Amino acid sequence: GFAQIDLERKERCGFPEVVYCAGKTVGQSVRILSALMNKYTNVIGTRASREVYEKLAPDFPAVQYDDLSRMVYQFTDKTPINGDRIIAVITAGTSDIPIAEEAALTAEIMGNKVQRIYDVGVAGLHRLLAHCEEIRKANVNIVVAGMEGALASVVGGLVDKPVIAVPTSIGYGANFHGLSALLAMLNSCASGVSVVNIDNGFGAGRMAGIINGMR
Amino acid sequence: GFAQIDLERKERCGFPEVVYCAGKTVGQSVRILSALMNKYTNVIGTRASREVYEKLAPDFPAVQYDDLSRMVYQFTDKTPINGDRIIAVITAGTSDIPIAEEAALTAEIMGNKVQRIYDVGVAGLHRLLAHCEEIRKANVNIVVAGMEGALASVVGGLVDKPVIAVPTSIGYGANFHGLSALLAMLNSCASGVSVVNIDNGFGAGRMAGIINGMR
Amino acid sequence: GFAQIDLERKERCGFPEVVYCAGKTVGQSVRILSALMNKYTNVIGTRASREVYEKLAPDFPAVQYDDLSRMVYQFTDKTPINGDRIIAVITAGTSDIPIAEEAALTAEIMGNKVQRIYDVGVAGLHRLLAHCEEIRKANVNIVVAGMEGALASVVGGLVDKPVIAVPTSIGYGANFHGLSALLAMLNSCASGVSVVNIDNGFGAGRMAGIINGMR
Amino acid sequence: GFAQIDLERKERCGFPEVVYCAGKTVGQSVRILSALMNKYTNVIGTRASREVYEKLAPDFPAVQYDDLSRMVYQFTDKTPINGDRIIAVITAGTSDIPIAEEAALTAEIMGNKVQRIYDVGVAGLHRLLAHCEEIRKANVNIVVAGMEGALASVVGGLVDKPVIAVPTSIGYGANFHGLSALLAMLNSCASGVSVVNIDNGFGAGRMAGIINGMR
Amino acid sequence: GFAQIDLERKERCGFPEVVYCAGKTVGQSVRILSALMNKYTNVIGTRASREVYEKLAPDFPAVQYDDLSRMVYQFTDKTPINGDRIIAVITAGTSDIPIAEEAALTAEIMGNKVQRIYDVGVAGLHRLLAHCEEIRKANVNIVVAGMEGALASVVGGLVDKPVIAVPTSIGYGANFHGLSALLAMLNSCASGVSVVNIDNGFGAGRMAGIINGMR
Amino acid sequence: GFAQIDLERKERCGFPEVVYCAGKTVGQSVRILSALMNKYTNVIGTRASREVYEKLAPDFPAVQYDDLSRMVYQFTDKTPINGDRIIAVITAGTSDIPIAEEAALTAEIMGNKVQRIYDVGVAGLHRLLAHCEEIRKANVNIVVAGMEGALASVVGGLVDKPVIAVPTSIGYGANFHGLSALLAMLNSCASGVSVVNIDNGFGAGRMAGIINGMR
Amino acid sequence: GFAQIDLERKERCGFPEVVYCAGKTVGQSVRILSALMNKYTNVIGTRASREVYEKLAPDFPAVQYDDLSRMVYQFTDKTPINGDRIIAVITAGTSDIPIAEEAALTAEIMGNKVQRIYDVGVAGLHRLLAHCEEIRKANVNIVVAGMEGALASVVGGLVDKPVIAVPTSIGYGANFHGLSALLAMLNSCASGVSVVNIDNGFGAGRMAGIINGMR
Amino acid sequence: GFAQIDLERKERCGFPEVVYCAGKTVGQSVRILSALMNKYTNVIGTRASREVYEKLAPDFPAVQYDDLSRMVYQFTDKTPINGDRIIAVITAGTSDIPIAEEAALTAEIMGNKVQRIYDVGVAGLHRLLAHCEEIRKANVNIVVAGMEGALASVVGGLVDKPVIAVPTSIGYGANFHGLSALLAMLNSCASGVSVVNIDNGFGAGRMAGIINGMR
Ligand SMILES: Nc1ncnc2c1ncn2[C@@H]1O[C@H](COP(=O)(O)O)[C@@H](O)[C@H]1O
Ligand SMILES: Nc1ncnc2c1ncn2[C@@H]1O[C@H](COP(=O)(O)O)[C@@H](O)[C@H]1O
Ligand SMILES: Nc1ncnc2c1ncn2[C@@H]1O[C@H](COP(=O)(O)O)[C@@H](O)[C@H]1O
Ligand SMILES: Nc1ncnc2c1ncn2[C@@H]1O[C@H](COP(=O)(O)O)[C@@H](O)[C@H]1O
Ligand SMILES: [Mg+2]
Ligand SMILES: [Mg+2]
Ligand SMILES: [Mg+2]
Ligand SMILES: [Mg+2]
Ligand SMILES: [Mg+2]
Ligand SMILES: [Mg+2]
Ligand SMILES: [Mg+2]
Ligand SMILES: [Mg+2]
Repeated sequence: GFAQIDLERKERCGFPEVVYCAGKTVGQSVRILSALMNKYTNVIGTRASREVYEKLAPDFPAVQYDDLSRMVYQFTDKTPINGDRIIAVITAGTSDIPIAEEAALTAEIMGNKVQRIYDVGVAGLHRLLAHCEEIRKANVNIVVAGMEGALASVVGGLVDKPVIAVPTSIGYGANFHGLSALLAMLNSCASGVSVVNIDNGFGAGRMAGIINGMR
Repeated sequence: GFAQIDLERKERCGFPEVVYCAGKTVGQSVRILSALMNKYTNVIGTRASREVYEKLAPDFPAVQYDDLSRMVYQFTDKTPINGDRIIAVITAGTSDIPIAEEAALTAEIMGNKVQRIYDVGVAGLHRLLAHCEEIRKANVNIVVAGMEGALASVVGGLVDKPVIAVPTSIGYGANFHGLSALLAMLNSCASGVSVVNIDNGFGAGRMAGIINGMR
Repeated sequence: GFAQIDLERKERCGFPEVVYCAGKTVGQSVRILSALMNKYTNVIGTRASREVYEKLAPDFPAVQYDDLSRMVYQFTDKTPINGDRIIAVITAGTSDIPIAEEAALTAEIMGNKVQRIYDVGVAGLHRLLAHCEEIRKANVNIVVAGMEGALASVVGGLVDKPVIAVPTSIGYGANFHGLSALLAMLNSCASGVSVVNIDNGFGAGRMAGIINGMR
Repeated sequence: GFAQIDLERKERCGFPEVVYCAGKTVGQSVRILSALMNKYTNVIGTRASREVYEKLAPDFPAVQYDDLSRMVYQFTDKTPINGDRIIAVITAGTSDIPIAEEAALTAEIMGNKVQRIYDVGVAGLHRLLAHCEEIRKANVNIVVAGMEGALASVVGGLVDKPVIAVPTSIGYGANFHGLSALLAMLNSCASGVSVVNIDNGFGAGRMAGIINGMR
Repeated sequence: GFAQIDLERKERCGFPEVVYCAGKTVGQSVRILSALMNKYTNVIGTRASREVYEKLAPDFPAVQYDDLSRMVYQFTDKTPINGDRIIAVITAGTSDIPIAEEAALTAEIMGNKVQRIYDVGVAGLHRLLAHCEEIRKANVNIVVAGMEGALASVVGGLVDKPVIAVPTSIGYGANFHGLSALLAMLNSCASGVSVVNIDNGFGAGRMAGIINGMR
Repeated sequence: GFAQIDLERKERCGFPEVVYCAGKTVGQSVRILSALMNKYTNVIGTRASREVYEKLAPDFPAVQYDDLSRMVYQFTDKTPINGDRIIAVITAGTSDIPIAEEAALTAEIMGNKVQRIYDVGVAGLHRLLAHCEEIRKANVNIVVAGMEGALASVVGGLVDKPVIAVPTSIGYGANFHGLSALLAMLNSCASGVSVVNIDNGFGAGRMAGIINGMR
Repeated sequence: GFAQIDLERKERCGFPEVVYCAGKTVGQSVRILSALMNKYTNVIGTRASREVYEKLAPDFPAVQYDDLSRMVYQFTDKTPINGDRIIAVITAGTSDIPIAEEAALTAEIMGNKVQRIYDVGVAGLHRLLAHCEEIRKANVNIVVAGMEGALASVVGGLVDKPVIAVPTSIGYGANFHGLSALLAMLNSCASGVSVVNIDNGFGAGRMAGIINGMR
Repeated sequence: GFAQIDLERKERCGFPEVVYCAGKTVGQSVRILSALMNKYTNVIGTRASREVYEKLAPDFPAVQYDDLSRMVYQFTDKTPINGDRIIAVITAGTSDIPIAEEAALTAEIMGNKVQRIYDVGVAGLHRLLAHCEEIRKANVNIVVAGMEGALASVVGGLVDKPVIAVPTSIGYGANFHGLSALLAMLNSCASGVSVVNIDNGFGAGRMAGIINGMR
């Protein structure tokens, strides 16, 4: 057919191919996801319309849709893979939550335990400091922030674990669609911080899950 | 001559024209500064080479030169203008100090009391929090930071006084000559923060001095 | 819940958290604003749809909505805070008025007296010069301009008080969504000018209000 | 040879090819300029080193060099072409003078009368307004400005004659090598303003000369 | 009211203020245009919706609307101002015609004679060369081109009259909304070319009209 | 009329003018395509709406429309021009297929044999390596990829034939509408790779067809 | 003094503050490094001149300097921290080696075992595939590449361990000082890839070291 | 050693690995080039200093150095590979010649016949048209141009053979190091044009050589 689904990816990289639905027709998305859902227990489609979900639902009773993150997924094997190691997903504002949920859900479907710490941006530091202990206990931290993206540096300075920074396109004017947060995070003066693409919650969740599984 | 020195600027704007020497020949800078130093007690040239200072020194015994900020100045009237109101100049790193000194000296020459709080960037928050009280007591805060420029937002969230943010070109790679800090500061999620040009310590010192004089 | 409203911000920074509604669902905006409106007399939501207002109106009879600036607000304590000190809000064109109104309303709700001087851009200097006296009498000037943003420099050269410059995204072609005015204002040859984000009327109003309260 | 000098350009476009020396070796510049100086009375090389001049001087006694604008030229036919029509060359600061001189000399060598009005930037409007009459009497205005480039709009609003705007790379930080002035001038709210390349004094002088010759 | 119409602009700059309708409400546009149409014979609004025209029509029987350029205008004084001097408006493609019409109509309403030479881009040079004589006879040339904007340089090399270049946002991919044509035109190796803002047909028409009136 | 169709282009460049419909009204597209379809057997319109096709169909029974690539075309002369020489069109993902189809169809209508190898991006190299032999046998390779555009370099390193790289705007966040793939492809460390505009499938198909015809 | 060395960073983040020497005078660098070298066994200064090393050597006999990466360091505690877990440092070309060495040395000084796999860029895939087994055995992979940065995606598609991508400024023309590789890596179609700043070998080594220590 | 020379590249891609010397030490360049010169007759190093040549000369008597293009090479097998098929290398100005020579030499060393047509930019079209026949007879055209890069489109519109466009960084101001010509060439309205990196003469020569060898 039109697509060459990478059916060896689970073996090679640890999880089946994830389908980025935004650039595909509903029909294409459904056909690729069907093939994957037939073969694997846990399957993810990102940036999916509700229509993709509705087309899959009759054939895949376990399929689910999350309005916030726009993910469609099948999550039938819930065995925890990484025991009690926690991935913290931290946002600067409430507007960053859809991206954070993409990261959190991705990590959960890949077998991780996730703790959400939302709306603790640097304009009110006490909110962050109130969660300092939880953050320091987490095994991996995902920091999701738009605007000036300062939260990644602040969290990076508090922990001795890796921080995955996700710049978001939240903000206006000279945020230039996430460029301000992206550049800020790349220039973090704290070490132990690495960065994924703007609004790429999935990429952060996946990276954090891989790291969380290392022992 | 070649220049139309704005000899009414002191009356109109509160301080004589400040000479930006970087784009001028040594000869031009000296001639313009001489005219101003003859007329006013307190005069500033920014981005000046030591040579400008050396050419002025024989005729103006009070002239001084600061290697760090590269300012040449005459500062003979030291009457404090703004009483005990303090302008705090805060930097993220030691590399930001030359720009901070441009701001601090400018404010001092314009009659303000300045407190320097250097090297308290967000990668080690405790350093900043240790100065929290001084910062909250200052009447105006100037925050000088390169890289991700996060310090402006953090300070902005701690005080109820204005914060003047100065992005610096310190950093490497994707800081793009100060763009990362500039965009971060413009997108600050804290309010009460406004921004001057990259590396423009003079502009920040002048703005803070004007604000400090309001009553 | 999903949001950690910063309920100490008024104490720390002088005014309660202001809600940026653009990145939030109507439901989220309403819940956050309700919590704030229950606790404080004066509360602001920016970039809000009329729907947010309509959902709040039944419970908060004092809530108001301004179509031009898209602000929703509760403004029940009208005690003037800064006496007869005036903040002038100046625009270059009529298209800049929505942003200017965001600045003006913000300043008013925070207890300031505001004077509006609209449509006095530099292509017809006499219009600006006709208001020269008012502008020089104002305690703080907010200059709102798109296109080439030249008005900030011209006003900056006329006064000895601080100028807060707001670049707007008004213009077309190579204004690149406000970049032309932003860069122009950051490079102002007049001193005493600092800049907030593109179209950030709120930020300017808040900054001017803080400065206006200094004594 | 290596170059195909456009020896019909004078006939086609009104003036012989002008040699841009910056990208050429001294040898190449000298050979091309020699060919032109043999054929024409008035010849221009821009961005030339003094060495080019020194190599030409023995063979071309009339050759001249201007240190400020870095132009090398032969100017033996001084017949005024455009009578008493004046081109005004106006700068914002003294740092813009080298570019302004490139424009002024170009126009003069092409047979125009030029009036220099330097250092009248918008931070001190009275300096500009003091020259208002001269500016309004000029047949064409060239406005040379760096930083925020506001002067072009202000002059454009005062006259009913064409304004040629030359952005300069003077400034620092977020002027991004002339981008701030370039964008500002392209977005001028005054009409009757068109723009040439950053620091392209030659281009402005040539354009103004062509316009000045129209009748 | 909300707007300070510049009612002296005709006297100062030669034509009444032109109303840029894109950033204004229909109501604002109508009120400003009404005031101008009552005072002057020839009045222009650019980037206007048909609705603005429909609201003006009952009161101003002479008002007209052009769908292509989206201009609304009153053009009752058709006295030719510049005799038989012709402004040529040249486009590279058919897609550039709306911008070209904005330029052509503007020039006509200001009293100029206009000749349209459309769709003669450089991919088929013979089309341009076929019009070479007309182009060389024109007093001013306006060149409207998107994509690589090469036509401005080619025309500039053929004539001894001024060329006003208008970059358009026509193209796709890496034209970045007109940036490719804008940069190309600013870097034209032909002299006698100056540039207005992307898609700014009005600006070009106005500039050409001013030049065409010189004698 | 409004358009000067380049009716000599076939003679000069080997194929009639191709009509880029995106910037034109339906009426303009139909008129230009009709003129061409009357004169030539094989005619192409790119970025066309279905409406253009529907307007042409009654008069041109052979006209066809392809929904994926949005091409309208007449393809009545199917004589293979380049014998058994094959152009391979290779995509990184399924989302790149519309652009790939524009390239493939263009090449076919110009008389070439095309082989499609889709969805073989570098995240699963084995998919590409499985087609290594076909790719090495092709006479020209067109590589269509968005995101990081890495596929062009990998293919370039496998073959001794030319590679035409087409960056696509597929991706999100910091792909900046195709800029990431464009820059990557221009910087390819493999030689024998040249690049066309973002999403310009037509340009790549045409270039490959010209090369395929060389002998 | 002028600097507030963060002497708690080791306790908080696992390793003492690393000194970025590029923005500091030799004297400043030496004083800060001395303080750290007195307190800790393993200390790093990055982007240091040889002069910094020479000033430190008399007092710190164990201090070393690496010409390639320009690192100055004290490395007296060589206890392996992470057992036999290997960090692979992979480069695309030989020109990327200085940055790779910064990463490798950083990781070693922090107690990790490092394997260098240099010059295996995608233009000759067999070189990379020859090391496939080593790469798949590594616990963390650091990929250092300039130009099109494609290597990160290719490695990301081969492994089930995290990949830290370091874009370098190697290349010319449209690599825009590392922007091409940076954007490519951020847009990697392989998951499990995160990115640090351009040329930031230190940041990658530190991040990889933190991850390598997780169990 | 440090480098993994791709000794199969000739077999795979038709010519041995070419060494980009700019990012390497003299020692590294010499060692890699020596290994290649021992194995192959024709070997190329680009962007080499004369020092590299001088180090190679004693061991490789046939080694040559070209000052203009900064290429070091061994060219002992001069068998023409592509018979009488000619590659034309065309430049807009004399300043583009160094890049053009890199392209021309590359093509010659790979066995092609090259014709140089220099300094025929679009500001004087007759110069180009005078060579029209030669250009149309060439089998492949390489067009090298800076500034507005218009020459690529003009040549593309004259021929039915492929055009390889090389943007150069020649120009000043808003050419932004070659960006203007790059964007222009990517947006060429002529088809049959593809583009290589800014100043990448080598890439164009190689691409043209590959195409020239097809039959
Ligand atoms: N490449 C680097 N080398 C050293 N320190 C770095 C580097 N990148 C970021 N940093 C951090 O940047 C900050 C520099 O601040 P300062 O040295 O005070 O100007 C410190 O927190 C360093 O740990
Ligand atoms: N950092 C700075 N130092 C001195 N003057 C500055 C600075 N930034 C802006 N200016 C102003 O920039 C203008 C420079 O114009 P000129 O010195 O005539 O070239 C004057 O109005 C200065 O007051
Ligand atoms: N993707 C494309 N589809 C059609 N024409 C194109 C394309 N890219 C460039 N062109 C050319 O762009 C020009 C369009 O000019 P016009 O159609 O007159 O606006 C013609 O020379 C076309 O051959
Ligand atoms: N500032 C300038 N000085 C001289 N020539 C210029 C300038 N700007 C553009 N040009 C033109 O740029 C072209 C340079 O081409 P070349 O000298 O052959 O490299 C000629 O057509 C010049 O007339
Ligand atoms: Mg919040
Ligand atoms: Mg420090
Ligand atoms: Mg107005
Ligand atoms: Mg001055
Ligand atoms: Mg056409
Ligand atoms: Mg796929
Ligand atoms: Mg190599
Ligand atoms: Mg030339």
